[in-house]
Amino acid sequence: MSRILRIAGAQMGPNQKADSRKAILERMIALLEQAAGQGARLVVFPELPFTTFFPRWLIETTQELDTYFERELPGPNTAALFDRARELGVGMYVGYAELTPQGQRFNSAVTVGPDGTILGKYRKIHLPGTVEPRPGDRFQQLEKRYFEYGDMGFPAFRGPESWGRPVLGMLICNDRRWPEGWRVYGLQGVELMLIGYNSAAYDPMGGTTESAELRTFHSTLAVQANAYMNATWAVSVAKAGNEDGSGLIGGSVIVDPNGVVVAQATSLGDEVIVADVDFDACRQGKEKMFNFAAHRRPQWYRPIIDQVGAVPPP
Amino acid sequence: MSRILRIAGAQMGPNQKADSRKAILERMIALLEQAAGQGARLVVFPELPFTTFFPRWLIETTQELDTYFERELPGPNTAALFDRARELGVGMYVGYAELTPQGQRFNSAVTVGPDGTILGKYRKIHLPGTVEPRPGDRFQQLEKRYFEYGDMGFPAFRGPESWGRPVLGMLICNDRRWPEGWRVYGLQGVELMLIGYNSAAYDPMGGTTESAELRTFHSTLAVQANAYMNATWAVSVAKAGNEDGSGLIGGSVIVDPNGVVVAQATSLGDEVIVADVDFDACRQGKEKMFNFAAHRRPQWYRPIIDQVGAVPPP
Repeated sequence: MSRILRIAGAQMGPNQKADSRKAILERMIALLEQAAGQGARLVVFPELPFTTFFPRWLIETTQELDTYFERELPGPNTAALFDRARELGVGMYVGYAELTPQGQRFNSAVTVGPDGTILGKYRKIHLPGTVEPRPGDRFQQLEKRYFEYGDMGFPAFRGPESWGRPVLGMLICNDRRWPEGWRVYGLQGVELMLIGYNSAAYDPMGGTTESAELRTFHSTLAVQANAYMNATWAVSVAKAGNEDGSGLIGGSVIVDPNGVVVAQATSLGDEVIVADVDFDACRQGKEKMFNFAAHRRPQWYRPIIDQVGAVPPP
Repeated sequence: MSRILRIAGAQMGPNQKADSRKAILERMIALLEQAAGQGARLVVFPELPFTTFFPRWLIETTQELDTYFERELPGPNTAALFDRARELGVGMYVGYAELTPQGQRFNSAVTVGPDGTILGKYRKIHLPGTVEPRPGDRFQQLEKRYFEYGDMGFPAFRGPESWGRPVLGMLICNDRRWPEGWRVYGLQGVELMLIGYNSAAYDPMGGTTESAELRTFHSTLAVQANAYMNATWAVSVAKAGNEDGSGLIGGSVIVDPNGVVVAQATSLGDEVIVADVDFDACRQGKEKMFNFAAHRRPQWYRPIIDQVGAVPPP
């Protein structure tokens, strides 16, 4: 059984508020076809790829908010992408704003197999931002307002036989900066972490010290080290560029289990990056340096679950 | 109260088996004086700096093993360093092989204040290597044979008033690759992590794919990302070079709370690196991106303590 899979990151340029859902979906289909044309069998799209990053706006009506959400996936605004992927025999990781039949809203992602089967689903746990808008700020970060916290944990799952049955995990955007989520996947033997993001090119909470360059460095650093410390491949894919005056970093990467960047986007626009991922390259790390059964000491980790905030010594 | 402290990493070149304890201690005192001469007020030495890295050898007798251990600190073989530090008014982090009055052995470190007071003590939790020697290997990694697992957890502590009362934490070598330890310190508001290491310049468990360059990259990456994800300064200091035919990486670094390297050793020998550490530079990270109280979701982290080894999905 070959355990080498060619994967692609489909970085997207900006989606303006005025862009039609149809125009955005056509760009995504073009990226999918480009990746498939390069031999990729799994294509990773960003977080919330179907619309602009709407949590930057204070949205007053449920009617308007609903235009950013999917009631089903695939659904009327997304089916063409799923159809084309199945025709090409290509799997996908794709984020979406999920509105459940019960009226719950989540920042979600699914991974779809080459035959269109939903292999796994994830709801973002580490929601950044605030519930209430910050007075006077032109751009907000209102994920805590529009979404409930993910309620599915960090559920790893297997890819299909034709991919070598790799253990896959999903994170969304800010999750990639939190080693706890990575570790819960690591404890399930994850071999490839799939991540989409929209990250502001400045400090969205009002700081002045974080340039786009520094924030791109943070984004890459977190993925590299957590991939290394869990001996897993990772692909982390941006929606990038200037959305209605608000900047998003690019820097999409594919990272190997040593934490080494093997492919990286160079633009802030629509751009495909590709790498051949050998899942067996995870074995050295998992069996030696990061042989968890041999080396972890959980009796000393209790504060990680017993405590939420930091409590400095007196 | 100024919260800027000039700190130094005192990287050490190799200690050969044949080197006398006195000659090694004199080198450490020279490094201390050099750091103090550059204005450093806290000097970080490597793990097990007083001897060669003896866990690479199978040591047959307790009598020989005891020559590598300290029954007290400061003690007859180390007091001159502690005396000189107190005279200079310089604090230190220093590793040592600890033999307790009850006969327990630990891989330990202490941090000493400018007046010689022991501010904190730590016993290494993530012991790498094996209990039994690997047949046929010229060099071993027998930390699990010679040491008990650390039994003090990850106890943060305060530096003195004259340093701005920073929250300090200690790790030893392999600990730096385990995000759990960093997070337990992060949950105590750590502002400066002190780390010493001896890391083989090849895979000590027999792998062939890890060059000295890759292993130095791993060492730096883990410190950078964990510093960033806990919004803390970190200083990580090697014993480096060729000890009786066994290579150790260098790459000692001082890293800021953004994960950016601000000072780095360039040799594999005795070398002082220095940086001015502004503890208040941790505030942006601790109050925004890594505001743990606002953003952590411990209810989903349970496998981190409920599980030791990895359990892949079926």
